[in-house]
Amino acid sequence: MIYVDNSATTPVSEAALEAMIPCFREQYGNPSAIYGFGQEAKKLLESSRAAVADAIGAKSSEIYFCSGGTESDNWAIYSACERSRGKGRHIVSQAAEHSAVLRALEKMEERGYEVTLLQPDRYGTITPVQLERAMRDDTILVSIMMANNVVGTVLPIESLCETAHSRNALFHTDAVQAAGHIPIDVRELGVDMLSMSAHKFHGPKGAGALFSKIPRIPAPYITGGGQEKGARSGTENIPGIVGMAAALRDAADNMARDSRYVAMLRDALVARVLEIPGAKLTGDPENRLPGHASFVFDTGKDGAHLINMLSEEGICASSGSACSASSTEAPHVLTAMGHGSASRSALRITLSKYNTMDEIHAITQRLPSLVAKLKSRKEASIS
Amino acid sequence: MIYVDNSATTPVSEAALEAMIPCFREQYGNPSAIYGFGQEAKKLLESSRAAVADAIGAKSSEIYFCSGGTESDNWAIYSACERSRGKGRHIVSQAAEHSAVLRALEKMEERGYEVTLLQPDRYGTITPVQLERAMRDDTILVSIMMANNVVGTVLPIESLCETAHSRNALFHTDAVQAAGHIPIDVRELGVDMLSMSAHKFHGPKGAGALFSKIPRIPAPYITGGGQEKGARSGTENIPGIVGMAAALRDAADNMARDSRYVAMLRDALVARVLEIPGAKLTGDPENRLPGHASFVFDTGKDGAHLINMLSEEGICASSGSACSASSTEAPHVLTAMGHGSASRSALRITLSKYNTMDEIHAITQRLPSLVAKLKSRKEASIS
Repeated sequence: MIYVDNSATTPVSEAALEAMIPCFREQYGNPSAIYGFGQEAKKLLESSRAAVADAIGAKSSEIYFCSGGTESDNWAIYSACERSRGKGRHIVSQAAEHSAVLRALEKMEERGYEVTLLQPDRYGTITPVQLERAMRDDTILVSIMMANNVVGTVLPIESLCETAHSRNALFHTDAVQAAGHIPIDVRELGVDMLSMSAHKFHGPKGAGALFSKIPRIPAPYITGGGQEKGARSGTENIPGIVGMAAALRDAADNMARDSRYVAMLRDALVARVLEIPGAKLTGDPENRLPGHASFVFDTGKDGAHLINMLSEEGICASSGSACSASSTEAPHVLTAMGHGSASRSALRITLSKYNTMDEIHAITQRLPSLVAKLKSRKEASIS
Repeated sequence: MIYVDNSATTPVSEAALEAMIPCFREQYGNPSAIYGFGQEAKKLLESSRAAVADAIGAKSSEIYFCSGGTESDNWAIYSACERSRGKGRHIVSQAAEHSAVLRALEKMEERGYEVTLLQPDRYGTITPVQLERAMRDDTILVSIMMANNVVGTVLPIESLCETAHSRNALFHTDAVQAAGHIPIDVRELGVDMLSMSAHKFHGPKGAGALFSKIPRIPAPYITGGGQEKGARSGTENIPGIVGMAAALRDAADNMARDSRYVAMLRDALVARVLEIPGAKLTGDPENRLPGHASFVFDTGKDGAHLINMLSEEGICASSGSACSASSTEAPHVLTAMGHGSASRSALRITLSKYNTMDEIHAITQRLPSLVAKLKSRKEASIS
């Protein structure tokens, strides 16, 4: 099997798993318990928090653990609105956000907030000028992703954040695709809130974090026993948190080397795929995640066909976002970027440090004939 | 170390961990991915769902996975309110619920709902007659726990549910302490929603479920990619879910044997502890969780002192609820049950199948002198 859908999810690294297993077996205490055994779990929790903070240039006190990227995005938006009560009810975001942001914004619309969705350009980016034009006196929050999940484009968060701040709005960024893959320094970026998900960087599923430096703790979205300083209740998922910290530390420590390596693989892949007649790269050719390659073809067929054909050859790739039970999301994002009817033919290949040049060769050897085969099909029904 | 705080959290069983590890290493696919490798993860997800459903007499389609008991409680209450829009805004619950329920109810109060909290009797129970008196024409939801976390009392859910239904209200039960410990058949109970947490029955932290048979899916509390039929978004925590299912299946399969065993340990413990002058059992002497023993003493000192003294002897016990960063919750519950000033001296010892009679002996040998020592202290400051 060749696994090249690392934007969907990644295997847990052995280092992360090794750190987790004792938390299941021996270090299983509840960190809220006052006896020594509970306090040992608390120490694991706090050292993990310090490691996560360190990896993104934050303070430990600004890191709040939760169940994943989706909860973190939902929570950030809810929290920013709660903490800005009385200041306004306008939010700016953009059409190519992950559904965890878009759906959360819709929920706020139901509660009387007004949302302006900017349209990304053909590379999937948003400019500060564009944002500036959308800002209003009652804008309380701007939420724009750090890197796009479908096309891999890295957005100019620092400038966008500056624009938001110049208009006194909070800035949240969904960094689910970025964390562990490109350098993040929350002080340089200036963001008020940032969302992460462990399973996108070889940590476990079911673990995520919210960086927040908004005044007071983030408004609790999940409430109860008062864990995470009252910001996120529920017994802390110590194995998940420990695994997340180990994976993020590992990613941060080796980022220069690993990102050079995956970018080399990606560049080789892109060069060969673009030799296929009708193939086009989607997203920004320069400002993109190191392991992210995304294309459209002129097959006129739904991307799911190509995914299934690749799957039969043992290659796991995606048509866009796997984080959606309905697979219709990717085309919308690509249509928003001006890819017209080709949008439905999307292919996303996302690499990790575990991929090899041999695998890239295997993919680029098979892909041209599969695309040609698909093109020649009269009508293809999704198998 | 003698670990007797199993109501706070439990070690993951080897069977559950064994089922989980391949999901970290090899079966790491995203269940939303359409290729075969993703669909294998989907199969793990659905077989886990079937196992959890089977353990509580539910249909697979009625089980929704989430991050734990707190989220499940929050979600159930939110969802019941959302799905009852236009029918009324009155909720009935009780004062000794877990804070995951109480805080969620406060959130609904902020949104204009009215909450009546019944007062439990001295055993920590609520009677159907008491509930009936609180029901109104605009009562949309009754939320009453299946077993109390502080005193172990098992509440008469079947009759309470019948009462709620006779007045057309939905019934939710927080079964976090009950699931895996006493038989649950959602059809017999008649409940509309039921919350569970994996780490309370030797499954992993960070995994929980909501049983729901309310019309339509539960209203999404965490929203985004549309996982769990749109009811709970976020990439499914497959290792956590698989571990939860394995642990619950194991608990259900061996419940008769295990509960007899832990009840025998508990009865031996209770008999010996009640020989200590001034010791009183809290909660219902009969209708209680098999492994749950809880006491108050006439030491006049805060329970934390006794917990710390026990901790120094290598015994991990609790004063009440560990699921709370502030340890002030247990006394409130006990005060509500009429234990007066003795409430603050609470001790909770909760057993699992991994405890032994030797451990019980070790505890009952040490406890009398610790209690006596504490009693004789002029004034004790929490160390």
